Amino acid sequence: MSTAASPLSSGTSAAPTGNLEITVSRSELLRELTAAQSVVERKTTIPILSNFLFEADEDRLTITATDLDQSLRTSCAAKVKKPGACTIPARKLYDYIKLLPDGEISIKLMDNHWVQIRAGRSNTKMVGMARANFPQVAEFPTTGSIKIAVPALRSMIAKTIFSISSEESRYTLNGALLVLKAESMAMVATDGHRLAHIERLGENLAGVSGEKKTLIPRKALGELSSLLANSNAATEEEDYVEFADDDTTLFFRIGGRVLTSRKLTGQFPNYEAVLPRDNNKFVIVRSEDLMGALQRVAQFADERSGAVKIRLEQNELRISSSSTDSGESEDIIETPYNYDPLVVGFNSQYLIDFLKAIGNTGEVRLEFKDAQSAGQMRPEDSNEDQKYRYILMPMRI
Amino acid sequence: MSTAASPLSSGTSAAPTGNLEITVSRSELLRELTAAQSVVERKTTIPILSNFLFEADEDRLTITATDLDQSLRTSCAAKVKKPGACTIPARKLYDYIKLLPDGEISIKLMDNHWVQIRAGRSNTKMVGMARANFPQVAEFPTTGSIKIAVPALRSMIAKTIFSISSEESRYTLNGALLVLKAESMAMVATDGHRLAHIERLGENLAGVSGEKKTLIPRKALGELSSLLANSNAATEEEDYVEFADDDTTLFFRIGGRVLTSRKLTGQFPNYEAVLPRDNNKFVIVRSEDLMGALQRVAQFADERSGAVKIRLEQNELRISSSSTDSGESEDIIETPYNYDPLVVGFNSQYLIDFLKAIGNTGEVRLEFKDAQSAGQMRPEDSNEDQKYRYILMPMRI
Repeated sequence: MSTAASPLSSGTSAAPTGNLEITVSRSELLRELTAAQSVVERKTTIPILSNFLFEADEDRLTITATDLDQSLRTSCAAKVKKPGACTIPARKLYDYIKLLPDGEISIKLMDNHWVQIRAGRSNTKMVGMARANFPQVAEFPTTGSIKIAVPALRSMIAKTIFSISSEESRYTLNGALLVLKAESMAMVATDGHRLAHIERLGENLAGVSGEKKTLIPRKALGELSSLLANSNAATEEEDYVEFADDDTTLFFRIGGRVLTSRKLTGQFPNYEAVLPRDNNKFVIVRSEDLMGALQRVAQFADERSGAVKIRLEQNELRISSSSTDSGESEDIIETPYNYDPLVVGFNSQYLIDFLKAIGNTGEVRLEFKDAQSAGQMRPEDSNEDQKYRYILMPMRI
Repeated sequence: MSTAASPLSSGTSAAPTGNLEITVSRSELLRELTAAQSVVERKTTIPILSNFLFEADEDRLTITATDLDQSLRTSCAAKVKKPGACTIPARKLYDYIKLLPDGEISIKLMDNHWVQIRAGRSNTKMVGMARANFPQVAEFPTTGSIKIAVPALRSMIAKTIFSISSEESRYTLNGALLVLKAESMAMVATDGHRLAHIERLGENLAGVSGEKKTLIPRKALGELSSLLANSNAATEEEDYVEFADDDTTLFFRIGGRVLTSRKLTGQFPNYEAVLPRDNNKFVIVRSEDLMGALQRVAQFADERSGAVKIRLEQNELRISSSSTDSGESEDIIETPYNYDPLVVGFNSQYLIDFLKAIGNTGEVRLEFKDAQSAGQMRPEDSNEDQKYRYILMPMRI
């Protein structure tokens, strides 16, 4: 595995540094800026991070954005009159290019890092910064990458990302764990109150021996998920993401784009210990019915806890809530149930999150043990190759 | 003209006060709650104003909302088992009814102002407040109303509302002036920097003698405009708004709904004095071209002032801007111009606002005198019955 440079180190590479002068198609440029702009630093504490790095050589323009935690490197075709590099305020450039009509755009580096942008009868000069100040971003390792199918990765992210902790102090919970084996892969995320786990069997992951566990930060999962959704690069690689890592950095190549992310350090909790083994009381309901009932009843849950009470009785699932401020509410869903009656409390939003993740369609199975034990939700479908489960800690009600 | 009670006075009227018990159609109820909910007080300093007043009698449910500045009264068909009245937290009710499936809803007043809402297998009790605490709202005057065509009023509001001052201290500029005559009507709004004026000739306003000037608060114009847009009450009156006023209150009846608004006091400025008379240098451009150029160039205007420079030269309109932070930008539009060259500065957002108001279609005429005088914009169309003009104060650039 190559030892790529840390994204934190600053300096120039062998890349061109001359007085860039190019012509690009507005639609192609806009497509790549759209992909790159979400990685640009929002805060302006380090001004250079608000800029795109443009590098032109041969017949391509390479665009780089980074906030030091992440970077995205992409490119588009360009007529390169003079190879070179410059940096341009990202937000301003993106907004301006969006407002230009389709056609050719010429971009030229002027004195004092100013960049001239011309299109039709529009002529703009933007205040850039020295290319030398732009941090160097790590290069994709030349060996050791793993190919993951785009639909599989997209689905795993969508079905776990919402369970990642939003408490920044819970450092090792600020990401999802990707577990790769030669013939299966899984993704797990938890915030300590609920856990989402998805496992896909029947995969073929060349290059993986044993078990490879990688903690992917939430921000990187978000970027990945929008890059995968918008992936329209017409390359043969587009059905696969190439994944690699080194000591400090994760790398994802999607079509011609490379996303890097700093690794999260620390140990992900031993999630296998919390997966329920003997939740033998279950009920099956239509997702849509459960969603409707939960949303209505949640209106009258305690605002801080969001707690609703689930009561299982003879062929009946009752969901209820009450709050001193707003009143009380109950919804009843008729469904086969013949085990002992059970009352258990959950955070209504956590239940709703899972129903959203499965698209609020089909049926869902709720599995319980007792009022003190974690509950489990699963989609009630016949997809043997994909096992999706969601574990919720009960609330005192 | 009747002397309707002030919307500020509190107390009970001859309306029913018993233990309301009714059944209504969810879709009809939701339609009326949607219309009424935007009038409900947002702040919760006076709790009763966060509630709807429900009054049931014969075969109708009447719904009232007010924030003391405004009120809306509307109704829908209901099966009334027991006539009566109650108040229900507006936001909670609206959100809850939205989440119910279509069908019949029964509503029943219980002890301690609790209100029970049942639909299918959903059962909710909400904490209401005493009906006696709900402020009395003014009744539509029995005589002296004026009928105004819905499309005409809607157009006049849309073409002036954006020019109303948002500075609360400029009290008499916080509304638009409606000027009614027997055969024409006009609406004017200004914030002291720009003024929008629309006049419609060939109207037929029965009941207006001489000139009737009414200052309508911005909030009421906003409500009116959404009531007119969503007006789907299947009544013969729906093509007209009935307008009336008394000493303190404005009244608008749209279909079966009545909107009231407290009057703004004070004198609207003498706008006729600022209408330019001798702006004899003009240029005609496509709205779309001007909009594109303005939006691009505005990106590089000084953030505080938004100033752009308009330069008219031989067959050319140049728009330019510069700011120390972001750079400089220029767009050129080719168009016939043969008067003396002219340079004048304007707030780019004000120019854009007008183009939006005319739907960014067709051509627009820009009329100037010199760099120190107000400019005027007008749509370049042949609508002789509708005169729309927009006056902008110049900026030093």
